[in-house]
Amino acid sequence: MPRYLIYAQDQFGTPASKTGNSVIRYSAGHVAAVLDSTRAGRTSEEILGYGGSIPVVSSLDEGARHGADSLLVGIAVAAGGLPAALRDVIRRSLELGLDVWNGLHGFVSDDPELAAIANRTGATIHDVRRPPADLPVGSGRVRELDQTVLLAVGTDANIGKMTVMLQLRTGLRERGVRAGFAPTGQTGIFIESWGVCVDAVVADFIAGASEAVTIQAARDNDIILVEGQGSILHPGYSGVSLGLLHGSLPHGLIACHQPSRATFRHNAWLRIPPLKDVIALHEAIANPLRPVRTIGVSLNTADLSDRDARAIIERTAEETGLPTTDPVRYDITPLADAVVAFDRERRATAASPSGRPSAARRATTA
Amino acid sequence: MPRYLIYAQDQFGTPASKTGNSVIRYSAGHVAAVLDSTRAGRTSEEILGYGGSIPVVSSLDEGARHGADSLLVGIAVAAGGLPAALRDVIRRSLELGLDVWNGLHGFVSDDPELAAIANRTGATIHDVRRPPADLPVGSGRVRELDQTVLLAVGTDANIGKMTVMLQLRTGLRERGVRAGFAPTGQTGIFIESWGVCVDAVVADFIAGASEAVTIQAARDNDIILVEGQGSILHPGYSGVSLGLLHGSLPHGLIACHQPSRATFRHNAWLRIPPLKDVIALHEAIANPLRPVRTIGVSLNTADLSDRDARAIIERTAEETGLPTTDPVRYDITPLADAVVAFDRERRATAASPSGRPSAARRATTA
Repeated sequence: MPRYLIYAQDQFGTPASKTGNSVIRYSAGHVAAVLDSTRAGRTSEEILGYGGSIPVVSSLDEGARHGADSLLVGIAVAAGGLPAALRDVIRRSLELGLDVWNGLHGFVSDDPELAAIANRTGATIHDVRRPPADLPVGSGRVRELDQTVLLAVGTDANIGKMTVMLQLRTGLRERGVRAGFAPTGQTGIFIESWGVCVDAVVADFIAGASEAVTIQAARDNDIILVEGQGSILHPGYSGVSLGLLHGSLPHGLIACHQPSRATFRHNAWLRIPPLKDVIALHEAIANPLRPVRTIGVSLNTADLSDRDARAIIERTAEETGLPTTDPVRYDITPLADAVVAFDRERRATAASPSGRPSAARRATTA
Repeated sequence: MPRYLIYAQDQFGTPASKTGNSVIRYSAGHVAAVLDSTRAGRTSEEILGYGGSIPVVSSLDEGARHGADSLLVGIAVAAGGLPAALRDVIRRSLELGLDVWNGLHGFVSDDPELAAIANRTGATIHDVRRPPADLPVGSGRVRELDQTVLLAVGTDANIGKMTVMLQLRTGLRERGVRAGFAPTGQTGIFIESWGVCVDAVVADFIAGASEAVTIQAARDNDIILVEGQGSILHPGYSGVSLGLLHGSLPHGLIACHQPSRATFRHNAWLRIPPLKDVIALHEAIANPLRPVRTIGVSLNTADLSDRDARAIIERTAEETGLPTTDPVRYDITPLADAVVAFDRERRATAASPSGRPSAARRATTA
């Protein structure tokens, strides 16, 4: 695993450093320091409220002295290439022999000068949005796994699908379950140091990429938590979301929703349908490929009062008949318990004489 | 419009020349000749049963003498680059100043030698699978059109979605309707000499590419017939199909089905659900973005006896309550009439005081 120096110049603690913040929240042990000279000398805890003593530093050298072996570039930049200042930081990182983990649309390894420096110093460039070569077309290969597969889906993009799965992994591990996370977007990839940005592959390969990630996450795990993307009703991203659903072929869904959100992200013309309808639609379009059940609901209530948040959680649980929580603000317990019960029930059914054991299970017991 | 020399060496009239055959069927006026030295001297009509006197020739020079100004490369080749013989033909075409229309996954313009020759002779290379630059993310822009938008959808891939829309265009034009075709795949692009392969764009841009194609096809037309791709239940291609549905935002759907097909293409593990269920699912996932209605059913009965074909058409019409035909084997009339009626009804509703006129219409009448 890498030890990151997170590039957040001029913006650590602002919404623009969201990606880096998530890496600190879910992978603090792999963050050596944060680079932001305007906040140098403080700690992550002081600025974000989490991340403990991870220091904010003012230079690459200082980051390296804190043990960083990789520069993480996860900030949002305007389209159209690397800003000069950032390119300069990347160049000097590579000269120091630091690996670069880059989430920008522009690929560092396509820059001949930067690629040559990396080649000379032995640094590795990870352009995490670059699709792997030789992706297959999706063909339902996840059916061959014995593991329980869960996917986070949502009423909209950017609503907490990655977060609930990472919280769920923690909750499941605390319960002694071998649960693995399958990263399908840049932040998830930074956190895990592997994965595929399924929205960055050629359209024909969305399901194939989702299959590949799910199968890789199965190794040494009994439950696979697949990071969701977008929404099957989002006007821009629905294709990615459906390819991910049909590629990962989940047994169970975690439905994510933000109660205060009325319209789709960047699409104010389009109202978000009721959560119950969105859940039913996911099941209707997943079921023909593999029977699926929605296990629980994850609400993002960050912008509500505690009282309103608790009320909406209760009402949602009543309306959907599903365990419901805000896994960041409150407690993952309702979802973690529901997943454990779901997994147990599924395996009991699969193993019973009336159930159809999977090929993998048959092979193991043969 | 180009005048094509269709490259079909060793295979004209076999399933491998399917793309070229479709171009001859739907755009014969733009085909100067077919290149296949093993069948030279014969005509398209003699070999395919259509295409009239389009000659089969044995050399590029001969094709050029018949008026070809473009080489069309639409054959299937094994993955992994241009076969040497084909590359040689492309090179000599470019030297003669013929444009190249290439549907292969490998791009001719990425070959430095070939690109240099084109540059020298002034020939243009059209790599039709290369996504246009600057595609937008989909955001429902098709709502701003006043035109009636129809999309072909299907129970599976490769089932007649392009064909029914091209037949429908002919039928509508015969009825005096200004109907345009929006090409979303390579064969459609060869036929129209423009379009976008929506399955070849980066996943985030499927809907945006579909929007762009639909809007472009609206010019000088009153009804837009959008070429469908895949199926929203196909394990490999569902993402492309849903992005196309949500990008093109059709008012009406033409549902395509092959009665003899039991399982999904290249996915024998997965049974195709009943047509009625697939129709309902399309409407359920399209409706939240824009109300949609299925207008008719197009069946591909090529592998059935005439008697069986007529029986299944009748039964499908009864079961779905929709006009049904095989538009190649029989007659497009039931669908063309249904589309004309649908279009008239939609415009009447949109123009009525209770209907909501579109922004474009309001602008026109302001």
